[in-house]
Amino acid sequence: MQFAFTLEEILEIVGEGQTEGLTEVKVTGIASLDLAVVGDLSFLGNRKYRSEVAASRASVVLLPQDYKGEPSAGQVYVRVSNPSDSLARICERVEKDNWIKPDSGIHASAVVDPSAVIDPGACIGPLCVVEAGATIADGVVLESHVFIGCRAQLERDCWLKPQVTVASDCIIGKRVRLHSGVVIGSDGYGYSTVDGKHRKQPQIGRVVIENDVEIGSNSCVDRARFSETRISEGTKIDNLVQIAHNVVIGRHCLIVSQAGVSGSTTLEDRVIMGGQAGMVGHIRIGSGSRIGAQAGVNCDLAPASFVTDSPAYAHLQSRKTEILKRRLPELFKRVAKLEEMIDSKDQIQ
Amino acid sequence: MQFAFTLEEILEIVGEGQTEGLTEVKVTGIASLDLAVVGDLSFLGNRKYRSEVAASRASVVLLPQDYKGEPSAGQVYVRVSNPSDSLARICERVEKDNWIKPDSGIHASAVVDPSAVIDPGACIGPLCVVEAGATIADGVVLESHVFIGCRAQLERDCWLKPQVTVASDCIIGKRVRLHSGVVIGSDGYGYSTVDGKHRKQPQIGRVVIENDVEIGSNSCVDRARFSETRISEGTKIDNLVQIAHNVVIGRHCLIVSQAGVSGSTTLEDRVIMGGQAGMVGHIRIGSGSRIGAQAGVNCDLAPASFVTDSPAYAHLQSRKTEILKRRLPELFKRVAKLEEMIDSKDQIQ
Amino acid sequence: MQFAFTLEEILEIVGEGQTEGLTEVKVTGIASLDLAVVGDLSFLGNRKYRSEVAASRASVVLLPQDYKGEPSAGQVYVRVSNPSDSLARICERVEKDNWIKPDSGIHASAVVDPSAVIDPGACIGPLCVVEAGATIADGVVLESHVFIGCRAQLERDCWLKPQVTVASDCIIGKRVRLHSGVVIGSDGYGYSTVDGKHRKQPQIGRVVIENDVEIGSNSCVDRARFSETRISEGTKIDNLVQIAHNVVIGRHCLIVSQAGVSGSTTLEDRVIMGGQAGMVGHIRIGSGSRIGAQAGVNCDLAPASFVTDSPAYAHLQSRKTEILKRRLPELFKRVAKLEEMIDSKDQIQ
Repeated sequence: MQFAFTLEEILEIVGEGQTEGLTEVKVTGIASLDLAVVGDLSFLGNRKYRSEVAASRASVVLLPQDYKGEPSAGQVYVRVSNPSDSLARICERVEKDNWIKPDSGIHASAVVDPSAVIDPGACIGPLCVVEAGATIADGVVLESHVFIGCRAQLERDCWLKPQVTVASDCIIGKRVRLHSGVVIGSDGYGYSTVDGKHRKQPQIGRVVIENDVEIGSNSCVDRARFSETRISEGTKIDNLVQIAHNVVIGRHCLIVSQAGVSGSTTLEDRVIMGGQAGMVGHIRIGSGSRIGAQAGVNCDLAPASFVTDSPAYAHLQSRKTEILKRRLPELFKRVAKLEEMIDSKDQIQ
Repeated sequence: MQFAFTLEEILEIVGEGQTEGLTEVKVTGIASLDLAVVGDLSFLGNRKYRSEVAASRASVVLLPQDYKGEPSAGQVYVRVSNPSDSLARICERVEKDNWIKPDSGIHASAVVDPSAVIDPGACIGPLCVVEAGATIADGVVLESHVFIGCRAQLERDCWLKPQVTVASDCIIGKRVRLHSGVVIGSDGYGYSTVDGKHRKQPQIGRVVIENDVEIGSNSCVDRARFSETRISEGTKIDNLVQIAHNVVIGRHCLIVSQAGVSGSTTLEDRVIMGGQAGMVGHIRIGSGSRIGAQAGVNCDLAPASFVTDSPAYAHLQSRKTEILKRRLPELFKRVAKLEEMIDSKDQIQ
Repeated sequence: MQFAFTLEEILEIVGEGQTEGLTEVKVTGIASLDLAVVGDLSFLGNRKYRSEVAASRASVVLLPQDYKGEPSAGQVYVRVSNPSDSLARICERVEKDNWIKPDSGIHASAVVDPSAVIDPGACIGPLCVVEAGATIADGVVLESHVFIGCRAQLERDCWLKPQVTVASDCIIGKRVRLHSGVVIGSDGYGYSTVDGKHRKQPQIGRVVIENDVEIGSNSCVDRARFSETRISEGTKIDNLVQIAHNVVIGRHCLIVSQAGVSGSTTLEDRVIMGGQAGMVGHIRIGSGSRIGAQAGVNCDLAPASFVTDSPAYAHLQSRKTEILKRRLPELFKRVAKLEEMIDSKDQIQ
């Protein structure tokens, strides 16, 4: 990532900001307050790091309006309404300048079935495979080593990183981003057990990924046993997450790394699921619920629930119990003492 | 997945069934009772959804013999001995009609070492790599982007989805299915630590996957330090599962998503391991044992054990403890009250 | 893996050893004591298996100096200072003889951008992609289906197994080993939520993997939001591990399978993280700390801490609490009995 911004360019990208101090240096890097060196831009995005501002060697520091302090020599403070947002704008500019969308067209090494419909504005990168009947819309990017199965549909401007698999009949919405190693549409895990042997239940449904979804590396979304598994608009899924068959994830949910959702469970809109959390199958999680990291949810949850622990229950109660659990050694002693006192009275009386 | 079945065709596929009601519509979809529309087939597979039958708009509904109720106009009820099994038969037919086994032969874009032995009845798909000395039997399918290492052996009719890796010297049995991103035979995690540095222990064993095993997307089975890691006949493994080096998994086990088994542990036959459960290394799990989701097993288990919690212990005991744990606030109050009462008596006496 | 060693060759490889007994057989396999057959070499690496030595059918057995017992007919005992180390030497020899480093050069099927700098001593295997501006040093091996993004740098002798992704701008140090399905440099999971919708924060940093790191199959290391995510020298990471953006892992750490580290957390040197353990973001784990399997760490830890449970706390305390937790049914009964006794006294008095 190479860039060199003058202070004026920074202010122009950010679109606001009162400056204090002077610098001749161009900004050629971005770093946290403690690691920044001359030539870097830094920012105070979290109060926790407030004490690190004064000692920071960054040439330009984005600060909230209410920060009290003065820049050192050769350093500029820029006060903005939200330093994190301002930083995001600068990063977006760097991203745009450096990660140029590849030219449209089909790479000579790609293997594309003649019956696939590829829009001339799509980019099919090297060593990709597109099977019969797939349709790929304008602005789609398949970076490299991507597999698109029969009849799959990729809508406008979705972007698939290297080594992604989209199995047959699945639908990928507009502006969806799938990171490397993601598998969409592998078979659901369904067997009927007869005489101790597991007979495969065919998994003939599909996966539908709605617009503006992003899915992290090596995550898996299984196709439905029949009908569909669905990830709704705007939901963001982290790396190594498991979404089982027939699951429905609502809109604008956040599912953090290594979480898993079992078959036929429904998450309503705006649910937040912490890292390594799990859910059993066939339950419904009300909209706006929060599931703590490593929690294990085994029943329906009302909207706006907040649960932790495994099995999971109300966070406030779970937190209280957790504290008391650690006081068990004390409680056992207190009970033993009571028994001793009662016992000695019995002997006296 | 495209299909259109008349009621007569449905009855023929299912092989049984008493009908009630009339429909002119062909079945072109399969859906759950609540989501079904005209033209769909639905079914009552789980008593839990019994109340949804009457309101379902499905054109054909598979029901158990004892279901009481009548179809609406234009709807047909079909009573069968096991609706789930009947549905499975219909799904199998749809699968067979839609997912046609690719033609045998080696795709022009595949890279196959001249010393590999490929049966003429095998299909080596686009952009696959088969290294020296590998043998691939009749009926095997490598879909695309599959890597087969030196001397690996793939037996009849095993089917590898896109992006699978089978490292050198591993053996894949008959009818095995490996889903996208599966890695068979990566190095086991073994180091000897000398002066605080970790020196790699060579991992020179292999992996043997026996007949009729299925392994889900992005799961990993490590090669043995020496000798072998083995997954026995008929075992079904879900997505994102970790099987470490020298593990032996018995026959007809079920290992649910994101579970992990540490090195040199043995699971006897028919063990069921819940999602996100873990096992330490060098233990033995008796046949028919059940391990709850998110459980952490750290010792040998007798056959037919049922354990939950982390560290795991007998489920009935763990469940009881879990309930009492949540009553800790009450218990602390009761003990405090006892202490107060004793104290006040002391003062009185 | 094919080999045939005489007893003399074994002793030469091991470099020490007093023999007892005689065998004519060449060693053509390595197996554990209980599974070994004639022709195998076995070893006693763990006291736990001491009782299995006498019944072992191995032709050659590596034993510690203090083992008491005599070989059977046709069997040889070899006493060495450390049987595991001796075995490792034999395995290293087998590995060297069998896994020959592929010839250097670029395979005809690889897609390499003309601006990439590939050392003539590097091996770019079949169907690899190397993008513009990447540099690949002497001795590097990319086995097959490997993707190397723009401007990525691979230093001497690093070895990437099939299906690895290294995204743009990342740096891979000397002798690093990345196993199949590893993703280095996918976007970090960062969004700012405005009006209930999640807007992507660009992730423009990189990943730096220092020398002698090894990372297991399907593990993910996300690029930094800005600056870098770093895995320091000599650290060994198992399969299916998640390392989030801006994490810094110190030197010579061990991170076991399915563990996850959230964004901006720092592990100092020589930290050991058990399987399926997790860490929240923005914390610091002191050097030499041990995190138990499935633990959930939610706060800074002092050097040399040892924690378990979720949320995690001091292991000794957690172990004690765990034992007392299982005695809750007894404690509830004791408290009920005390209440009854107090109550009956009240009635008597």
